[in-house]
Amino acid sequence: MTTARLEAFSDAVIAIIITIMVLELRIPHGVHLRALRPLVPVFLTYLLSFVYLGIYWNNHHHLLQRTDSVSGGILWANLGLLFWLSLFPFATGWWGENHFATTPTAVYGVVLLCAAIAYYVLQSVIVARQGRDSALARALGSDWKGKLSPILYAVAIGLAFVNRWVAVAIYVGVALIWLVPDRRLERGFSATRS
Amino acid sequence: MTTARLEAFSDAVIAIIITIMVLELRIPHGVHLRALRPLVPVFLTYLLSFVYLGIYWNNHHHLLQRTDSVSGGILWANLGLLFWLSLFPFATGWWGENHFATTPTAVYGVVLLCAAIAYYVLQSVIVARQGRDSALARALGSDWKGKLSPILYAVAIGLAFVNRWVAVAIYVGVALIWLVPDRRLERGFSATRS
Amino acid sequence: MTTARLEAFSDAVIAIIITIMVLELRIPHGVHLRALRPLVPVFLTYLLSFVYLGIYWNNHHHLLQRTDSVSGGILWANLGLLFWLSLFPFATGWWGENHFATTPTAVYGVVLLCAAIAYYVLQSVIVARQGRDSALARALGSDWKGKLSPILYAVAIGLAFVNRWVAVAIYVGVALIWLVPDRRLERGFSATRS
Amino acid sequence: MTTARLEAFSDAVIAIIITIMVLELRIPHGVHLRALRPLVPVFLTYLLSFVYLGIYWNNHHHLLQRTDSVSGGILWANLGLLFWLSLFPFATGWWGENHFATTPTAVYGVVLLCAAIAYYVLQSVIVARQGRDSALARALGSDWKGKLSPILYAVAIGLAFVNRWVAVAIYVGVALIWLVPDRRLERGFSATRS
Repeated sequence: MTTARLEAFSDAVIAIIITIMVLELRIPHGVHLRALRPLVPVFLTYLLSFVYLGIYWNNHHHLLQRTDSVSGGILWANLGLLFWLSLFPFATGWWGENHFATTPTAVYGVVLLCAAIAYYVLQSVIVARQGRDSALARALGSDWKGKLSPILYAVAIGLAFVNRWVAVAIYVGVALIWLVPDRRLERGFSATRS
Repeated sequence: MTTARLEAFSDAVIAIIITIMVLELRIPHGVHLRALRPLVPVFLTYLLSFVYLGIYWNNHHHLLQRTDSVSGGILWANLGLLFWLSLFPFATGWWGENHFATTPTAVYGVVLLCAAIAYYVLQSVIVARQGRDSALARALGSDWKGKLSPILYAVAIGLAFVNRWVAVAIYVGVALIWLVPDRRLERGFSATRS
Repeated sequence: MTTARLEAFSDAVIAIIITIMVLELRIPHGVHLRALRPLVPVFLTYLLSFVYLGIYWNNHHHLLQRTDSVSGGILWANLGLLFWLSLFPFATGWWGENHFATTPTAVYGVVLLCAAIAYYVLQSVIVARQGRDSALARALGSDWKGKLSPILYAVAIGLAFVNRWVAVAIYVGVALIWLVPDRRLERGFSATRS
Repeated sequence: MTTARLEAFSDAVIAIIITIMVLELRIPHGVHLRALRPLVPVFLTYLLSFVYLGIYWNNHHHLLQRTDSVSGGILWANLGLLFWLSLFPFATGWWGENHFATTPTAVYGVVLLCAAIAYYVLQSVIVARQGRDSALARALGSDWKGKLSPILYAVAIGLAFVNRWVAVAIYVGVALIWLVPDRRLERGFSATRS
């Protein structure tokens, strides 16, 4: 299996996930502006999940760019990541419709955590195949973002039961950390190419 | 990240948006022709949004054809455009189901306006990277359509509260202005190639 | 715009249409086999529309294979075809859920008719650009299938109000005529290539 | 028609099927953890179907990699496979929502069986075209998995009416047999390439 094909399939799945998520923004019954008010949290959670999926799509691309060939392990690690990403519409919808209630806030964190672990597994399987001295391994460096994020999600899940807004703040904060495209890999590429 | 990949992902998202929009055309309960009558406005708004998404797809392609490489800024400006385009099914459905009621008419205009601004931002980020003397910048020229459209949408949003049919007329009119594929860029290409 | 890109976008839209159509096959409430009985007509209409979309996908591909470049006219004629194809889920769902009632049977024929006309327009625009002496024009030959189908659909729409099963038989019959991949074009290709 | 295009279209359809399947995981009304409890079987059946579709996607790719050209027969055999795969969301949803009730358990097996037969037909059509001495035929070898699976599904369908958990165990077991990527073909490739 070529990397291009794995990427194309993953792209299609992510594109569909990101788009069907908007179906949770259900058309209200009223025709006045106040009919949109209950949709505000749905809109905000949609926006956050849209950003997260954009981040995953971007990082996933940078990762696969550096992957020479696809083994069965990589294929299933990739499907594992797509599985957890496919739960974003559910977790986002439950969270938004219930206006950031405690349990849905924590469950959203669980999906974030599982997706982050799945990404880490995928990355590790690829690095193991490419070799510790590969351009990919060097470009990843200490990978502090990849290691810190799951810890922060786990902390947020716990804190959601104390004060859910702390959890929300952590989810937004981690997204902001990642929003900058993964410069390590970009720099790594340039360094390799030049 | 290659331009081809950004295009393929954007294409997939636009293809999905354009298609799930038709899900708002809900199957009526009756079996007679009159059961379709309440669907006429839904059908008409679907048609208009279909044309708008066709226009965005077309112009987006011409724009990216002239983009040599993708920076993080371009990537996120592109995701910003896709985010606003993803709100078309919601805005279209609310508008059509309520038979062109005032507020939904204005809200549809807000989505049109935000998408137009997002497109303008994307275009500006790309032009800034390609350079003011690039073939793209020359091909865009004064870009009167790109500058006029947001103004017309803003005017239409205001006028929707006076007479919503004026707003509808403006939305249709702007679509007609754009329906002609962006000849500036096409001409620019030919000029460059010949 | 390259033909490849127009094809990729059309493929994505057709793939989505063919798949969301299955959403009309709603999960029944009962847990016994008889709960599936009301779904039989929905299943049969889904099968017929699946075949029709498969035919369109196949013929569309053979057509674009012979298209050297894409003009604005071709682009919008193609979007016109996709628009009518996008109404298949609606027409199919209404038809199946109402167990082949008269009006939905006729409306299904209207969508078939409009899609056939849109395909004919697309084909004509492409042939006009490629030239009457082009390999495409020669391969199409008299195009008796393309000319006969809309006539048969129109007849079926009228007959639906006399006896809807005659209309159903015509829809199935035309699908069978087309089910054989368009050998004219395939032969045309081989002839040109050899 | 090129193999690449057939693959791209199939990929898109499988990507959409795998993703819309998650829509059956409907957002619960409550905001407490116990509101998720009725969703556990839906989640488990979703997971199983996700794995099955991943297996089909993977094997389908290995199969088409070895296909030199696409005939009309291959095209329609491929659409036949996609048709049965498109029924996964329905069968999975009915099965999960009814907490592994007897009839939905058997019907899920019927869809598994039909998809397996459709895959076998596709494979046979391709092998017939490629020739009994082709690299593909050699790589497939005795194809004991492909022959055993439909038999096991048929047995499971019957046993579902005796004890549905036996059927569930067989479905899971067959998935595990396939979960290992089709090493025959992979090995076949390496053998051919080296």
